[in-house]
Amino acid sequence: MPYRAPVNDLRFLLDHVVGFDQVAASARHAEATPETVGAILTELARLTDDVMAPLQRVGDTRGATLDNGVVRASPGFGDGYRQIAEGGWVGVSGDPDYGGMGLPISLSAAANDMMSGACLALQLNPLLTQGQIDALEHHASDALKALYLPKLMSGEWTGTMNLTEPQAGSDVGALTTKAVPNGDGTFAITGQKIFISWGDHDMAENVCHLVLARLPDGAPGTRGISLFMVPKFIPDQDGNPGQRNSLRVVSLEHKMGLHASPTCVMSFEGATGWLVGAEHAGMKAMFTMMNNARLMVGVQGIGVAEGAYQHALAHARERVQGKTPIEGGTGTIVDFPDVRRMLVQMKAEITAARAIALACAVAIDMERATGEAEWAARAALLTPIAKSYGTDTGILVAQLGVQVHGGMGYVEETGAAQFYRDVRVTSIYEGTNGIQAMDLVGRKMMDGGDAACRLLEEVEANAEAARATLPTLAEAVWDASETLRETVEWLVGQDMQDRFAGAVPFQSAFARVLGAHYLLKAALAEGGEGPRTALATFHVTRLLPEYRALLDQARAGAAGLYALSVEDLAG
Amino acid sequence: MPYRAPVNDLRFLLDHVVGFDQVAASARHAEATPETVGAILTELARLTDDVMAPLQRVGDTRGATLDNGVVRASPGFGDGYRQIAEGGWVGVSGDPDYGGMGLPISLSAAANDMMSGACLALQLNPLLTQGQIDALEHHASDALKALYLPKLMSGEWTGTMNLTEPQAGSDVGALTTKAVPNGDGTFAITGQKIFISWGDHDMAENVCHLVLARLPDGAPGTRGISLFMVPKFIPDQDGNPGQRNSLRVVSLEHKMGLHASPTCVMSFEGATGWLVGAEHAGMKAMFTMMNNARLMVGVQGIGVAEGAYQHALAHARERVQGKTPIEGGTGTIVDFPDVRRMLVQMKAEITAARAIALACAVAIDMERATGEAEWAARAALLTPIAKSYGTDTGILVAQLGVQVHGGMGYVEETGAAQFYRDVRVTSIYEGTNGIQAMDLVGRKMMDGGDAACRLLEEVEANAEAARATLPTLAEAVWDASETLRETVEWLVGQDMQDRFAGAVPFQSAFARVLGAHYLLKAALAEGGEGPRTALATFHVTRLLPEYRALLDQARAGAAGLYALSVEDLAG
Repeated sequence: MPYRAPVNDLRFLLDHVVGFDQVAASARHAEATPETVGAILTELARLTDDVMAPLQRVGDTRGATLDNGVVRASPGFGDGYRQIAEGGWVGVSGDPDYGGMGLPISLSAAANDMMSGACLALQLNPLLTQGQIDALEHHASDALKALYLPKLMSGEWTGTMNLTEPQAGSDVGALTTKAVPNGDGTFAITGQKIFISWGDHDMAENVCHLVLARLPDGAPGTRGISLFMVPKFIPDQDGNPGQRNSLRVVSLEHKMGLHASPTCVMSFEGATGWLVGAEHAGMKAMFTMMNNARLMVGVQGIGVAEGAYQHALAHARERVQGKTPIEGGTGTIVDFPDVRRMLVQMKAEITAARAIALACAVAIDMERATGEAEWAARAALLTPIAKSYGTDTGILVAQLGVQVHGGMGYVEETGAAQFYRDVRVTSIYEGTNGIQAMDLVGRKMMDGGDAACRLLEEVEANAEAARATLPTLAEAVWDASETLRETVEWLVGQDMQDRFAGAVPFQSAFARVLGAHYLLKAALAEGGEGPRTALATFHVTRLLPEYRALLDQARAGAAGLYALSVEDLAG
Repeated sequence: MPYRAPVNDLRFLLDHVVGFDQVAASARHAEATPETVGAILTELARLTDDVMAPLQRVGDTRGATLDNGVVRASPGFGDGYRQIAEGGWVGVSGDPDYGGMGLPISLSAAANDMMSGACLALQLNPLLTQGQIDALEHHASDALKALYLPKLMSGEWTGTMNLTEPQAGSDVGALTTKAVPNGDGTFAITGQKIFISWGDHDMAENVCHLVLARLPDGAPGTRGISLFMVPKFIPDQDGNPGQRNSLRVVSLEHKMGLHASPTCVMSFEGATGWLVGAEHAGMKAMFTMMNNARLMVGVQGIGVAEGAYQHALAHARERVQGKTPIEGGTGTIVDFPDVRRMLVQMKAEITAARAIALACAVAIDMERATGEAEWAARAALLTPIAKSYGTDTGILVAQLGVQVHGGMGYVEETGAAQFYRDVRVTSIYEGTNGIQAMDLVGRKMMDGGDAACRLLEEVEANAEAARATLPTLAEAVWDASETLRETVEWLVGQDMQDRFAGAVPFQSAFARVLGAHYLLKAALAEGGEGPRTALATFHVTRLLPEYRALLDQARAGAAGLYALSVEDLAG
């Protein structure tokens, strides 16, 4: 089933819904005119549709392999990667001083959306490098920057993140990997890391690992962790990969999906590393990297959702079963109300999630362009919502995509099942969606809910503005926002345990309200009549109402969760 | 992770919640005392826990294979199957005159729940035979019964259903397989069938296919379809498998899961068949078979959910991450509110779905024991709800199970992923859940909603009775039932297109209300205090409230679904 990158939808949302014009108006991004953005995404679409999408299935059936200690990428992936790198897409938002394109994060989000829809396993590789670029730009010494950034931006080298250890997953502070000073400014890194995506491969000449480890005088917990650059091949002064470092791939995981993305167990055996940022400040550097990475993982979910949706729609338009129930129908199952309901929901969820992710990206761009704390708070608030709702949407849409296919959805050849298997990891990695929710109701509400309330004021102002054109929708969105705001005000008065107990439903309710808000904006942008208005009406009528039950759950508190003992649960 | 069949939960629900005492009090099932039921399920638990559960993983990694036209089952499956057969579990509810145990369908449902949780791929084989037994008991000639039923009940032979063809899935009436009289009372069957579960294997000496085909004078559509018995080996007069019939396995599907259950493309090439039931009455016979099969597929979903839940709970009780947030906690992630929330939801959904399925089974038993139309209507009403909610629960709980495992859930060795992949087909086969919902709002409401309203009167009467003990829960359940009843009354006044547009949300709302009802009954049975009361409180507080948004969707009508054209969906 051919994939067609959703360039028009992305452009519409950027131009009319998420306020990208503010980014384009900033001095930092004066070059990002609507025309330029359109041209860039159209150029990328050739790559995603013609080069990346055809790699999707072969990556599943012929996954990456470990061959004598070296990881071999799936057939065709090396060439696909090369074209991504040559197009400048790895360094799309990187600093131009080091060879990046310097384009806004909003554009990078759109590009990653398109690449994820075409081939998630391949897209993950440059995404990881982008995260590493971000961390180095913010925290590395000038010498490290000069050595690594040009190679990473050009895609000649790729980057990984090494956080997790067998006993230290969500609790990063429990890690035991050690860093011992070598006396020459470098460090000897020793320990085992797991779940290292693209930890090795044969598509680029070097693989650069950012590794969290503890110095001998590092305190226990997260405060004693430092960040190190540990390359597979140690570069010489001219930046050519030289001596092989003391690190190796022990094994690859057998995963439910993403077979083309090698998930490595890495062993560092006194490997030479260079400190990134200050000693014991590794978590701070890691969070820089993770915040953008979290947004982009949300974008991955949205991209896969788009692929799964296009796949299901194409099937529904071809599959004949029974008589069409509607006048002038196509005669295929796309005419049947329940199939139609699933497809419209898929489109509504994707559009809502995409708008939230792009709005988050715009906030990051504006934070960087203006340095204003309000934009920083907006970006921080939206990140967990964009990550969790984007990935939840990926899983839900892929699940509906299988269902639209009927029995054929369960058969691998159709491709529907692969989306379902591939996307499943996105609600887990880069901080599970439960962790995102704890971040949202915890750290992101430490301002007493100010950032949330400011955003909801915008939602309500927009709803007010919509009353003349779309009164019913406007009223429903206004009501929902008001109820959510009351919940925010209630929430900040609760202790953490009660907040955490309802954190995931709260996060989902927030996404419901924001989704309705952005779809309403899109409807207004077409004058309150047309397909975007129909989509907004569908969302507000059929999806938005879930916010009430979700907020009931959000406010239900922790006590009820422990009313059953662990023994009761097992009994 | 060892599986422990949920014998206690099943017994509690049978004894205190779903009215199994009525079945036990009937003349037909006088032998089914609580003690006997307990002994039977305890006996079965040895088989499910010690024999079947260990086959789960090997069936995934070493699936069934097609070897020179013969299907080879996964290692160990032949022995596991033999023990199921020797235990009498294939003919558990079969007619004792033909060697069955004659036990109630309620018990068969409990047994299939336990077997599905241990190893779904293996359980599917006897389940299919049970469906065939049911169809033959109701529709076959005495001669066919005498020849086939004893062999099927003993498990010496197994049964399949052959409905689907490439162009005829949900639209069975489009099938083209032909049946031509041979002049000797037999028929020559020619055509291709797809998605035939366990269409061949080497675990039994014969495989008996029930095949839907059209006689030369058969009308187009479903009214011209007849049902035929087409054995792999044609039995001689003594019931020994003789001449090889003209049918063969063309290929096996590559599926997302259930690898140990071979899904065959079958080719019938003038194969000899015997008519089952009257000419052109094949659909009626098939529906007999399908109704029980639909309930039992719902039970499959519940069984897998149980397996996935036990797996996730065991992981959560072992996995240490961070400090426990509660006093006197275990120190593992089971203490964390969001993990706890997921686990309690899993248990609540499983218990609710199990109660609905068992209540449906009780209605079937009572229909058979009393012949009363009210019981028949109750069984007919509950069947689509039990099928869809049971399988939705399987998918949801397996999905949460992966999430509880974190990154390890995405790695196949953990086993969490297999539940997720295996169970995915259950919302598709035996009539997709969308088809179930159309059945619920269409055929099952042809009585003007009488059966539904009678059931909801019971729900409300029970809520009234609960007011003294658990007033808050009682009030919430009463309200929900009342709103659902109003929706039923509204629904029966709508045209089919508007009913179908909201059919799936309506079905989900019905399951929410019934789930709360049965959990409230369970809470009352323990006197309104204890773990079942805590579980009911969780459901009523956090899950039941979804019914409002679901009923909003149910009443939203069809027009909004078509407000976006097919081109809009693609644009």
